Amino acid sequence: MNPVKAYHIIVAAGKGSRFGADLPKQFCLLDNKPVLMHTIERMRKSLPESEIVLVLNADHLSLWEELCRRYDFMSPRVVTGGSTRWESVKNAVDTIVLDPMLKSVITVHDGARPLINRPMIERIMTAACNASGAIPTVAVSDSLRMLDDDGVNSHPVDRQRLRAVQTPQAFDGMKLKQAYTLPYEPGFTDDASVMAAAGYTDITLVEGDPHNIKITLPDDLAIASLYLRNEPTKES
Amino acid sequence: MNPVKAYHIIVAAGKGSRFGADLPKQFCLLDNKPVLMHTIERMRKSLPESEIVLVLNADHLSLWEELCRRYDFMSPRVVTGGSTRWESVKNAVDTIVLDPMLKSVITVHDGARPLINRPMIERIMTAACNASGAIPTVAVSDSLRMLDDDGVNSHPVDRQRLRAVQTPQAFDGMKLKQAYTLPYEPGFTDDASVMAAAGYTDITLVEGDPHNIKITLPDDLAIASLYLRNEPTKES
Repeated sequence: MNPVKAYHIIVAAGKGSRFGADLPKQFCLLDNKPVLMHTIERMRKSLPESEIVLVLNADHLSLWEELCRRYDFMSPRVVTGGSTRWESVKNAVDTIVLDPMLKSVITVHDGARPLINRPMIERIMTAACNASGAIPTVAVSDSLRMLDDDGVNSHPVDRQRLRAVQTPQAFDGMKLKQAYTLPYEPGFTDDASVMAAAGYTDITLVEGDPHNIKITLPDDLAIASLYLRNEPTKES
Repeated sequence: MNPVKAYHIIVAAGKGSRFGADLPKQFCLLDNKPVLMHTIERMRKSLPESEIVLVLNADHLSLWEELCRRYDFMSPRVVTGGSTRWESVKNAVDTIVLDPMLKSVITVHDGARPLINRPMIERIMTAACNASGAIPTVAVSDSLRMLDDDGVNSHPVDRQRLRAVQTPQAFDGMKLKQAYTLPYEPGFTDDASVMAAAGYTDITLVEGDPHNIKITLPDDLAIASLYLRNEPTKES
């Protein structure tokens, strides 16, 4: 692989309203350390040469500062988020200055996915270097039904062709920056959809990891802790 | 609600090949008791007046007998499963003799879903009494993509209209028995699809429970144990 400059945007600007805890999920403790610090540390260990941009809600800046002091943690560069995920990522993307002489990859990762590991990041980075982008996915294990237009009736859906999408999603740096100059559309649910609107549809699906869960409900913290304990190696 | 006679088919005929353990998942220990015994006990506590039919693989009959002895557990009536889920359910359905004077509901539940609880069963039974059937579902929390026909490219899927399907699924007893007289079709992935082939499409979607997981991977046992410990009440 030719030298590639990597930038990781970690999005942790959510207010955590679905979580129902006092603290947004990314600041809750997972094995005695805030979730977000796990995420950042594992990103750092996986690709030490890369630059991390952390997106936080303006309301949480002083909380984060206090947490970094308390846990003696060096924060990555912080960018303030917006009112949508798109705006939050855009704010970060806009601060990244690419070297036009170097191939660059920008990844975007959920701060509330602390179980990201090195093999997965390496798979994604490799794939992103050979396409406009790469997305980690896992098989869908549930049987699914789709609601009909009436919102009441429903029909079965063939899950064989469906994939559940995780992060980090990785993109050609130049193309992602260009895609984020487009005006916002409500259909922008993730970065791949922003890329698609800019005409970059060659997005490679890469094998994700079932343990790479997003902390959404309080029980997810205990599940993440369980996965951490059961990890085969400590190097990831 | 008028008097309803309920029959519960618990399907535990799987060989557990995805599980990777020595024992199929339904016989593995969850908090010191086989998963399947949790499932049966909770079914019994939820609707004590109903009849349970347990479907086991022929290879596991003596194992189950031995487990029942060891755990001093009274087994429900056992029926031998077939080579497909459809055949297993059919074998059980065929042994159920309905009273034509009574409204009846037959539920079909995965033996490897031990976290079934009374409120959920009550929701499903109530809904099944007012339609041909009722299926518990939960919202899909992952972002999803669908593979295109080429198996390589993919496009995002709107998850708002998708629901992940759980069990128990409950059906009008007469109609389910009739639907299971139809010849097998490969599209029969669950009981609702069998009902649909018989023309019974008025299936009500009922709120499931995110904790009502199916034990599929070894970590799921630890997750189920965690959910059991965190249950708000012990009555379910």
